[in-house]
Amino acid sequence: MIRIVWLLALLVQVLSFIPARAQSFDFQQDSIFFRKLADDVLSSPAAYESLRVLCKTIGPRLAGSPGMYKSEAWAEKALQTAGADKVWKQAVQVPHWDRGGKDEAWYQYTDASGKKVKVVLDVLALGNSMGTGKNGLLKKAVLIHDFEELEKRKDELKDVIVIFNNVFNPRNLSVGQSYGESGAYRRSGPSRAAKYGAAAVLIRSVTASANDNHPHTGALAYDTAYPKIPAAAMGLKDADQLIAQLKAGKAVQVYYKSMAHFKPDATGHNIIGEFTGSEFPDKFITVGGHLDSWDPAEGAHDDGTGCVQSIEVIRAFKAMGYKPRHTIRVVLFANEENGLRGGSQYAKEAKTKNEQHVFALESDAGGFTPRSFGFTLEAAKLERIRQWVPLFVPYGVYQFANGGGGADIGPLNRSLGTPVAGLSPDGSRYFDLHHARNDVFEAVNKRELDLGALNMALLIYMIDKYGL
Amino acid sequence: MIRIVWLLALLVQVLSFIPARAQSFDFQQDSIFFRKLADDVLSSPAAYESLRVLCKTIGPRLAGSPGMYKSEAWAEKALQTAGADKVWKQAVQVPHWDRGGKDEAWYQYTDASGKKVKVVLDVLALGNSMGTGKNGLLKKAVLIHDFEELEKRKDELKDVIVIFNNVFNPRNLSVGQSYGESGAYRRSGPSRAAKYGAAAVLIRSVTASANDNHPHTGALAYDTAYPKIPAAAMGLKDADQLIAQLKAGKAVQVYYKSMAHFKPDATGHNIIGEFTGSEFPDKFITVGGHLDSWDPAEGAHDDGTGCVQSIEVIRAFKAMGYKPRHTIRVVLFANEENGLRGGSQYAKEAKTKNEQHVFALESDAGGFTPRSFGFTLEAAKLERIRQWVPLFVPYGVYQFANGGGGADIGPLNRSLGTPVAGLSPDGSRYFDLHHARNDVFEAVNKRELDLGALNMALLIYMIDKYGL
Repeated sequence: MIRIVWLLALLVQVLSFIPARAQSFDFQQDSIFFRKLADDVLSSPAAYESLRVLCKTIGPRLAGSPGMYKSEAWAEKALQTAGADKVWKQAVQVPHWDRGGKDEAWYQYTDASGKKVKVVLDVLALGNSMGTGKNGLLKKAVLIHDFEELEKRKDELKDVIVIFNNVFNPRNLSVGQSYGESGAYRRSGPSRAAKYGAAAVLIRSVTASANDNHPHTGALAYDTAYPKIPAAAMGLKDADQLIAQLKAGKAVQVYYKSMAHFKPDATGHNIIGEFTGSEFPDKFITVGGHLDSWDPAEGAHDDGTGCVQSIEVIRAFKAMGYKPRHTIRVVLFANEENGLRGGSQYAKEAKTKNEQHVFALESDAGGFTPRSFGFTLEAAKLERIRQWVPLFVPYGVYQFANGGGGADIGPLNRSLGTPVAGLSPDGSRYFDLHHARNDVFEAVNKRELDLGALNMALLIYMIDKYGL
Repeated sequence: MIRIVWLLALLVQVLSFIPARAQSFDFQQDSIFFRKLADDVLSSPAAYESLRVLCKTIGPRLAGSPGMYKSEAWAEKALQTAGADKVWKQAVQVPHWDRGGKDEAWYQYTDASGKKVKVVLDVLALGNSMGTGKNGLLKKAVLIHDFEELEKRKDELKDVIVIFNNVFNPRNLSVGQSYGESGAYRRSGPSRAAKYGAAAVLIRSVTASANDNHPHTGALAYDTAYPKIPAAAMGLKDADQLIAQLKAGKAVQVYYKSMAHFKPDATGHNIIGEFTGSEFPDKFITVGGHLDSWDPAEGAHDDGTGCVQSIEVIRAFKAMGYKPRHTIRVVLFANEENGLRGGSQYAKEAKTKNEQHVFALESDAGGFTPRSFGFTLEAAKLERIRQWVPLFVPYGVYQFANGGGGADIGPLNRSLGTPVAGLSPDGSRYFDLHHARNDVFEAVNKRELDLGALNMALLIYMIDKYGL
C-alpha cells in the first residue's frame, strides 16, 4: 500500500514535467472564428432562399431534361452572387432517360364472394428502366421475399411479374445500411428476375415511410447478360395491400405500363465556382453536391441542399473577409443519379491536368441537422484531426467517423488518392422523401440547412489552415 | 532531457501499477441489453400508433376542456395495454381557460394614394389572457422593439395597442435560449405594457418559422398589480407586414377581438402507471410527459410524444422480460401548459406520503432525434454516470449535460431534492410548430420518436441497475 502511495505521489511529480499533448491547432483563435462564422451563416437568408428558387422555379432536373439546362444557369448565377472569383462549366456527355409520361399499374383478383376486384397502384418506373410499350403487360404476380427465395423458386418465374417484398429494416442504427440492403432489390432485382424469364418487376419502395403512399424511384442497373425488363417501385400502402393478397394465396394479375426510354446522350455540365487561394492557388479543396435530381419532385434534400450548402461556403468566407490559402472549388456535379458522369469527368480532367487536390467534401445525405463527418483518409491523419472535434461540438458535429465521402467525389479519391469526406446529417427523415414527390422545399428546415453549411465551412477552414 | 526520458520511463512503470479506472458498470453486458432493447423499440409500432390515436381521435386537450377528459381515458387504457401493474388517477384542481371562439384581428392605414387599406391578421389569444368583450378594441398601434424601448416610450402607451417586435434570435446555438428571450414578451409583455396604460398587446409569435403564418399561442402571466389587458400572438408573415407599415411611419389602427375567459376550476388528473420494483417497490423512478395541450392543434410534439415515449418504457421492459429493481412510475401530468398544477400536486403528495424518489425523467422538448440528456444532479454524480455515455452514442445520445429536467418534475426536484433529467432532442424544428396548429401527428417521424423512447428506457435501465 505504501509503495502505491509513493508511486502515486511520484506520478503527480512526473506528470508535471510532461507538456500537455501538442495541439495542432489554436483552440482559442479558431473557436472565435467558428463563432463569427456561425453568426453570419445562421443569420443569413442566402442558402435557404437560393434553395427556394432552385426548387420552386426549376424543380426536377434529371440529366438531359429541360430542367438540367435551367439548373445549370441557376448554378452559374448563384455562384456569381455568392462572390466566386471565377465561374466555369465543365462539359460532360450525360445519359438522357425519359419517363415518357405517367406510369400506370393495377392488379386484379377474385374475392371470397367470387367478385372480381381491381385495385390501382401508385407506381414510378425505376430510373434507367425500359418501358413496356403502349399496351402494357398483364401478367401473373409472384411474391418473392428475398434473393434466396428467388433462387429457390426460379422455375416459377417465366413470364410473370415478380413482386419483391424488400422491407426497409428499422433495426439498423444506420439508415444508410437499410437503404443499401433494401436498395439491392431496386438496383439488381430486375436483372436477377430477368435471368429466370420474368416479364417485369415491381418492388416495395426503398423507404421507411409509414405515413404516405408515394412511390420512390431511383436507378436500377441492368446486367447486360439478361433481357432488360421493365421495373417500377410501388407506394408502401399499395405494396402492402398487394402483398397481403399474395400472402393470402390469392391468384393475382398485375398490369403495368411504362413508356420509359432513353434518348440520345446530351451535353451537361459540372458547374464550378472558385475562390482563388492566397498562398496555394494551384492546390484545390473541392466542396460540392449534385445538381441533378429525379423527375417526380423538386430534389430539395437530394441534392438541392448539398448544392446551396456548398455555395454558402464561398459566400460566408467572402462575407467574413476570410482569404483561404488554397483555392476553394465549389462543384455542382452533373448526373449523379443515373450515371455519375459528372463526378467521373471531374476526376478525369483533374488527372489529365495533373491538378493537386488537397481534400474533397460532399453533402449528399439530406439537409438535416449535421451530426458527423465521415472520412476516407489515412488512419493517423484522421486521428490527428479528431483533436478538432471539441471545436465542432457546439455546432452539432460530435464525431469524425472512419469511412465516408460522396458518390461524386469518389472518383477523385480512387484515381488521385484525394482524401474525401461526407457530411452526415441526421438520417431519420431522409428516406421518407428520397427520390419521391414529397422531396420538396417545404421539407427543408432553414436552421438545419444552415447548420450543415456552417459545419462544412468550418471543416474547410480547418483543413485550409492546418492541412491534412 | 535525460531527466525527462528517465521520468517518462518511470511513468510507464508507475502506470502499470495503477488499476484501470474503476468502471461503475458492465460495458459488455449492458451493451448487449441496449442492443436487444433497441431491436424491440425500433421495430415496434406501439408508440407511434398510440400517438396517432391520441392526436387523431382526441386532439386538443387543454386543462378543463372536453379533450382533457378524453385524453385521461386514453392514457389509462394506453398504460394498461403497455402492461402496467397498476394504473391510477391522481386528482388535481386545474384552471379552465377557454378561447371562447375564433379570435379576430385586422389593421388599417391610409396608403400613399390616400386610399384606406384594411388587412386581416391571423392571431391567437395568448393562453390565460382576458378577452376584449364582443365589440373588440380598435386602437392606435405603437411599435415597441424591446423592454428598453418600452420604458423610454412609456408616456406614449396610454390606450394604444402595443405591437411587440420580439424576434427569435437565429444565432443562439440553443433554440431554447431564443425561446426564453423572445418568450419573455409573451409571458410578461402584456403586464409591462398595461403598467403604462396600454389597452392590449400583440406580439410576433415566439417562433423561428420561416415558411408559414400560423400564430403560436402559449401562456402569459399577468402581474396582478396592473390591469389584465387582452393579448394575442400574430403569425410571422402578418406580423412582419404590420411592423413594416409601422416602421415606415404609417399611422396604423389595429382591431382585436377575443372572447377568451376563465371558467371555474375543473377536476383533472395525473394519470399514473406503475411497474412494481422487484427489490425496492417503495422507491420510485418517475418518467413522464404532460397530457394537456394547447387548443389549436393536436399537441403531437407538445407533448403527445413525451407521453407515448414514457409509456413505451414500460411496454419495452415488459416485452424484454426485464424486471426493474425500483418501481417505475409513468406519470402523464395534467395542466403543464397553463398552470403546472399536475406537477405540483405530484410533488406535494410525494412529500406528504414521504415517498422515496430516486430519479425523475421528462420528455417535453419534442419527439425529434435525441441528442443528449440534461441533468440536475450533484456534479460528482453526473461525472460518474458520464462514463455511461459511450454506451448511448450508437443510439444518438452523445452528451450528459449539466442542467436540465422538465417543468412537471421541477417541483419534485425543488421540494424533495430528487435528481431529475430531461431528454434533449434536436431542437431545430420544435419552435416551428410549438403551440401552433401545425403541431400534428404527421410532423412526428416514427424513427425519431422511437429513438427518444429507447434512450429514455436505456437511461432508466442504467439508473435502476446502478443507482445515482
